[in-house]
Amino acid sequence: MIEKAALIVIGTEITRGIIQDRHGQFVTRALSSIGIHTNQIVAIPDDGSIDSILSALVHKSDVVLITGGLGPTSDDMTREAIARVAGTRLERDKDSWDALYAKIGEKIHGANEKQTLIPRGFTRMANANGTADGFYGYTPSGCLIVCLPGPPREMQPLFESTVLPLLSQLSGHGELVRREYSSFITAEAKLEDLSHAIAPQLDWGTRFQDYKISLYLSGGSEEEKDEAIAHLRAAVGQDLIADGDTSALDELVCVLRERKVTLSAAESCTGGLASGMLTQLAGSSDYFLGSVVSYSNEVKREVLGVDAQTLATKGAVSEETAIQMADGVRRLTHSGYAFSITGVAGPAESERKKVGTVCFGFSSAQRGSAALTLHFSSWGRDSVRRRSVIAALILSRIYIEGGDVVAAAASWAAL
Amino acid sequence: MIEKAALIVIGTEITRGIIQDRHGQFVTRALSSIGIHTNQIVAIPDDGSIDSILSALVHKSDVVLITGGLGPTSDDMTREAIARVAGTRLERDKDSWDALYAKIGEKIHGANEKQTLIPRGFTRMANANGTADGFYGYTPSGCLIVCLPGPPREMQPLFESTVLPLLSQLSGHGELVRREYSSFITAEAKLEDLSHAIAPQLDWGTRFQDYKISLYLSGGSEEEKDEAIAHLRAAVGQDLIADGDTSALDELVCVLRERKVTLSAAESCTGGLASGMLTQLAGSSDYFLGSVVSYSNEVKREVLGVDAQTLATKGAVSEETAIQMADGVRRLTHSGYAFSITGVAGPAESERKKVGTVCFGFSSAQRGSAALTLHFSSWGRDSVRRRSVIAALILSRIYIEGGDVVAAAASWAAL
Repeated sequence: MIEKAALIVIGTEITRGIIQDRHGQFVTRALSSIGIHTNQIVAIPDDGSIDSILSALVHKSDVVLITGGLGPTSDDMTREAIARVAGTRLERDKDSWDALYAKIGEKIHGANEKQTLIPRGFTRMANANGTADGFYGYTPSGCLIVCLPGPPREMQPLFESTVLPLLSQLSGHGELVRREYSSFITAEAKLEDLSHAIAPQLDWGTRFQDYKISLYLSGGSEEEKDEAIAHLRAAVGQDLIADGDTSALDELVCVLRERKVTLSAAESCTGGLASGMLTQLAGSSDYFLGSVVSYSNEVKREVLGVDAQTLATKGAVSEETAIQMADGVRRLTHSGYAFSITGVAGPAESERKKVGTVCFGFSSAQRGSAALTLHFSSWGRDSVRRRSVIAALILSRIYIEGGDVVAAAASWAAL
Repeated sequence: MIEKAALIVIGTEITRGIIQDRHGQFVTRALSSIGIHTNQIVAIPDDGSIDSILSALVHKSDVVLITGGLGPTSDDMTREAIARVAGTRLERDKDSWDALYAKIGEKIHGANEKQTLIPRGFTRMANANGTADGFYGYTPSGCLIVCLPGPPREMQPLFESTVLPLLSQLSGHGELVRREYSSFITAEAKLEDLSHAIAPQLDWGTRFQDYKISLYLSGGSEEEKDEAIAHLRAAVGQDLIADGDTSALDELVCVLRERKVTLSAAESCTGGLASGMLTQLAGSSDYFLGSVVSYSNEVKREVLGVDAQTLATKGAVSEETAIQMADGVRRLTHSGYAFSITGVAGPAESERKKVGTVCFGFSSAQRGSAALTLHFSSWGRDSVRRRSVIAALILSRIYIEGGDVVAAAASWAAL
């Protein structure tokens, strides 16, 4: 049963930084999809160090994959190293010789002939796109060694057509066993704490991206995974974990397009970031008309029509101001819906409100306006602004769908 | 004397193929440039296997560099493994603790506190872009261990500023005499072609960042370097290569603060990105009042007061519209200066104007308005938008300083 893999990538141009390795991600992603874990990816030069590395890895792995070092030059020593580790010798593979002869004719005599040698007992894998065939076989202790040519255009087709089906069969997994979710606003450390507390027996993984965290879940039964993700969703709050690889923007745009409605924004502390995001996708003029960045109180008053009295008594960071900002920009741009963001991004407090206090307003011609306040724990100005933008996109979608934004935001436990 | 290096990249998301390793090439290319050979790049999961790998590598290498595994979660075990190999224990670094406390306050207690521990006798390297500091020190047998945070945007600046000069000295390559410049708008490949054509005997390096490219220059005499950079500046155009590590935003904000003037923006194709950038720094309300994202023609007309006739005859993407947008937002926000951006970000053409055509307007109460058109080669919607934002910031600075924006932009050769 094959579970643990190691990958050796051979190429001096990789260890000198001349080119970027392209095999590591390609191979390990495919292995993950059939339930095989890669414990090491090692890149080494063409200097013979394959010998000691391979000797060490065959004792710790069920399969060792090797790319490169199969060329005709003297620094290509992979096939000799494999034969030594497998306790056998190299011999000519007749099919390989015939195939190479058909490709290069009499030039086969000399250095190229070496490319038709494989360790005794190993199986040749025909390379349709180059002169060096791949091969695989077992060491005496039962480790499978799979050897592939180095150039990606030769290696990748061979891997897909021959290696992956073989390993899939040997690993006893045939299908993708990992679920993916997209999580918003909640900090990565918090998400990890919660997920491990909820279901420590499952395999959780996270990957931080600028505006979301990808969350991966595997192991256990389908029921266990269903239950775990339901608990996690309840713990972080409504609509903060979406199925699959998605973004808060994609989810909102999908609703805007479905309903054929337009949206505009009034931004204070986020200074235009939300609008910048709303115009990120091609064709955004279908649903986005414009917005006002009302950074100063004068612009809030004069351009958006926020009441001077409200600003004086409630402050710029208040739900009252937020509603008037959203109403103002919606009227100004004649859009169907509008949202507003006004808060304290920091690092300094403002109006005696704490850093991370952000008010949101939502306005539409059809229904009543709504407003709410979030209190983000401060991981810095940039983080407060980014999380505010994502919160506005999620809440706008809920509002446009007719949902209760105040209840949704109230369920958000770990900001 | 340091000659042989090994690099350990820690990250389960790399060995599972979820993301591509970005450290291998970055680090090994830099090491090669100072005569250090990398004998192994090893990527491993966050599962504790660092222990045995590191133990083996310190006996075969003069320096072992490690990236990742410094986070607050329980699977981040790098620092413990290094302490064990170095035969010492972890202790709190006071500077690290103070710096983290300044960033996240009372949240330091608990999991995050671990990030302030470094092996006794090791030297901390302050991480300006994240919560985990790096550190370096020696094992009893004399191998240097250098530990860096995993996220590229944290690791790369720390490597450039601290690790590379240190290794350069230790490798006998002498004091690293390297000049740094910041380059804007010009594509990285173009910059590399030009710099190597101008002075192939010098050592050029580039590092792509979101809104700029860092350009490094070493080798040759001071005069050679002066001459090479003067030629490069002339080739790419006025004000596109700045001295040192700076940004178009910093340069503009410096002038706004010096002159105590305010700025506002009218954005079409950039959709708020320029305003989002202008409000990125704390205290931006000193110089930024607000802006209008006029995505639709109605908003251009009704909110900014762009003439309907101009829109009908010249189009939304025209210098005439750009000037009226800038004038409009300046009057609306009562700011001293204003700029506008209106263009075709793509992927589709608009008004029969090619993707990458972007018009800019500049307005002030004191002097005449100005407008110009740039034609960006299209590397995609996102790239056209980003380069437009940077162009607007550079040109706004020139305009506020009384310079000729039309002449400056006309010198930009490689957009």
